[in-house]
Amino acid sequence: MMEAMAAPTRSELAEGLSAAMAEIHRRGWCDGTGGNFSCVLKRNPLRLLMAPSGVHKSAVAPEELIEVDGQGAVLRGEGKASAETALHLAIVERCGAGAVLHTHSQAGTLLSQWAQPQGHLELRDLEMLKGLEGITTHACSVRIPVLANDQNLPKLSALAAPLLPQAPQGLLIAGHGLYAWGNNLSSAQRHLEILEFLLEQHWRQLLLQALAPAPSA
Amino acid sequence: MMEAMAAPTRSELAEGLSAAMAEIHRRGWCDGTGGNFSCVLKRNPLRLLMAPSGVHKSAVAPEELIEVDGQGAVLRGEGKASAETALHLAIVERCGAGAVLHTHSQAGTLLSQWAQPQGHLELRDLEMLKGLEGITTHACSVRIPVLANDQNLPKLSALAAPLLPQAPQGLLIAGHGLYAWGNNLSSAQRHLEILEFLLEQHWRQLLLQALAPAPSA
Amino acid sequence: MMEAMAAPTRSELAEGLSAAMAEIHRRGWCDGTGGNFSCVLKRNPLRLLMAPSGVHKSAVAPEELIEVDGQGAVLRGEGKASAETALHLAIVERCGAGAVLHTHSQAGTLLSQWAQPQGHLELRDLEMLKGLEGITTHACSVRIPVLANDQNLPKLSALAAPLLPQAPQGLLIAGHGLYAWGNNLSSAQRHLEILEFLLEQHWRQLLLQALAPAPSA
Amino acid sequence: MMEAMAAPTRSELAEGLSAAMAEIHRRGWCDGTGGNFSCVLKRNPLRLLMAPSGVHKSAVAPEELIEVDGQGAVLRGEGKASAETALHLAIVERCGAGAVLHTHSQAGTLLSQWAQPQGHLELRDLEMLKGLEGITTHACSVRIPVLANDQNLPKLSALAAPLLPQAPQGLLIAGHGLYAWGNNLSSAQRHLEILEFLLEQHWRQLLLQALAPAPSA
Repeated sequence: MMEAMAAPTRSELAEGLSAAMAEIHRRGWCDGTGGNFSCVLKRNPLRLLMAPSGVHKSAVAPEELIEVDGQGAVLRGEGKASAETALHLAIVERCGAGAVLHTHSQAGTLLSQWAQPQGHLELRDLEMLKGLEGITTHACSVRIPVLANDQNLPKLSALAAPLLPQAPQGLLIAGHGLYAWGNNLSSAQRHLEILEFLLEQHWRQLLLQALAPAPSA
Repeated sequence: MMEAMAAPTRSELAEGLSAAMAEIHRRGWCDGTGGNFSCVLKRNPLRLLMAPSGVHKSAVAPEELIEVDGQGAVLRGEGKASAETALHLAIVERCGAGAVLHTHSQAGTLLSQWAQPQGHLELRDLEMLKGLEGITTHACSVRIPVLANDQNLPKLSALAAPLLPQAPQGLLIAGHGLYAWGNNLSSAQRHLEILEFLLEQHWRQLLLQALAPAPSA
Repeated sequence: MMEAMAAPTRSELAEGLSAAMAEIHRRGWCDGTGGNFSCVLKRNPLRLLMAPSGVHKSAVAPEELIEVDGQGAVLRGEGKASAETALHLAIVERCGAGAVLHTHSQAGTLLSQWAQPQGHLELRDLEMLKGLEGITTHACSVRIPVLANDQNLPKLSALAAPLLPQAPQGLLIAGHGLYAWGNNLSSAQRHLEILEFLLEQHWRQLLLQALAPAPSA
Repeated sequence: MMEAMAAPTRSELAEGLSAAMAEIHRRGWCDGTGGNFSCVLKRNPLRLLMAPSGVHKSAVAPEELIEVDGQGAVLRGEGKASAETALHLAIVERCGAGAVLHTHSQAGTLLSQWAQPQGHLELRDLEMLKGLEGITTHACSVRIPVLANDQNLPKLSALAAPLLPQAPQGLLIAGHGLYAWGNNLSSAQRHLEILEFLLEQHWRQLLLQALAPAPSA
């Protein structure tokens, strides 16, 4: 359930998104030209601010961001919109998200592929879950949907759409990475850090459980 | 055994705490809006300087810190005090701590959950133990208490209180993270770095012991 | 298939290469004085700009770079050309590369040694593969050639030469590291980040596959 | 075999040592107040510049360094010399070292303890070995001596002394960390980065060898 959005100016949004991408690259979550990042400029009609396709995300200046409409057409700025814009738009529409951050981290790539046969990755009993909107206790379990990867983005978006409203502000694409979102950019950044933390933690849990049984009282 | 505290000014304390939080976030120990951090402004009556609840700790300006009293009520500044303030206060009162740093690291989350059935995590025979106040040789063993996580902070604090005086300047909450403290901010930072180092080391020891027996002479 | 190169000035190339090396060191991919890095100044006759041999790559100023010819002789600047210049030249000639980045990362050193008996390392089914020039779907497999290490660089280069045109913009030398290249510096940087990501991912996949079977549906 | 030392000024040495410590802390190799770092100011009589005992190494200003003589007495500056000065002095005297860098890294702590029963850690067949003074091929093996930890530093130094001339510019103390040295500060930094790389690599090799046999041709 998203709250009403605050209304930062276009240049505040652009500066915020540019800084968020640089920080996400610093952490190793969008190497190469991987990942994509957007935020909502306005809703009626829908306008997204996002990085152009195929650029390195470590140093995209605010003025290099492009503006796209609700069909993914570029209205302003230089460069193309990524094919993945379709999934950004689905998340904005289905979840009322104000920002969508799509990363290619080590843990996200690894566990999305590992959990794909099951169709979801379950995370439970950790305090960090409380960083996700609407969760107020560690004593819970969330299931991040995991979809098979597909280069047909309209098809992938159509498969994702019905899963989005129940998703814990995150969705995994197998062998590909994580989409995280929130009602505004800072909320999306919080959800991204929380979900990336939980993915890395799950990988460590799997190794530890296999190798070292917990000591008893 | 804590030494008499030096008396930095309020703005020195605020700048120090702000810088400490930024560094702790840089290391990945308080992702999302996880963790909380406080230091003692004065003792009679007790006043704590701390980050407001629910903010991202990477860039909290000194003037954004709040001041709370010995019951956790906010006396100055904008925002709410975290429910975890109760545990900060218990540590300040029981241990005479001048600063309390509460992190959500990978190793702290993982090993607190792993060791919870035993009620403590034992660390031994490492030179880095000497970074903890009062320890003068590696040839020793310390036990960090591990409590079950609970969203009822007054209850959790009451369970923690009797364990605090013997704790090695650190306490683990299962699946949640580490509380580290010291008689002032720099001492608490030292204890935090030492305990986080030792937790990460313990995780590596568990993997190595399971997979590769030490070579013999 | 390389595109026509843009034509930055000499000082733009030198600044770009200097900044690329500092970033590569920050990531821990060229510790000590390991690794070497070059880009093409012009093609007829061939001139390379590169770091002199034996210097630490974290802070090489643009004016400290040397210029070498197609036989690896230093034409300008102070210091010697690394013996590995022979392999840089082979890559430039065989692949039409505009920049060659040679790293000594943890995963590159580890997996090059591990995969050497097989003569290649196969990477497959990951979205990040699309960061490599010419790859348009995750549903593919690439084989990075792995050569035995040899201090005789002319011999090593002669062994590498026939493998280069089919190599996925990368080559591993066993127990030594990775060569990545591209038609210009930013393309080589993209390929380096992609290949280093995929190597680190492969190491994690090997651990996870051995320890934790994927959950079934 | 060490070359004749260059002669930087005192303030150049102090600035270099201060910057080296900040970088070593950034990499997580001297958490808490762990580690110690020195360089030779002059030889006759012997004078060392070093960090005072018990300070955090992330931000020691050049003017905060102390000067000690060949018996470890402080001649200039505020603070005490670490008890470990005895081992720094032994290394300077036995190896002609111009700088000694002593770290407490994860891999150094772990593998020193693991290899202690054998009395050494063997590293072999890696290109990165060539970063150690005097090594010209990867096809070699070096043995880093590993001594049991002891709080009696004169005793530890006496045990170390006969091992130092054959040591590969590095010595491990079990469960404690690494001493690395070189004929001047930049050479010591190179050896430190090389040895820390090789220790981390050895830990990864041990996990991989236990879990994933190499593929055959």
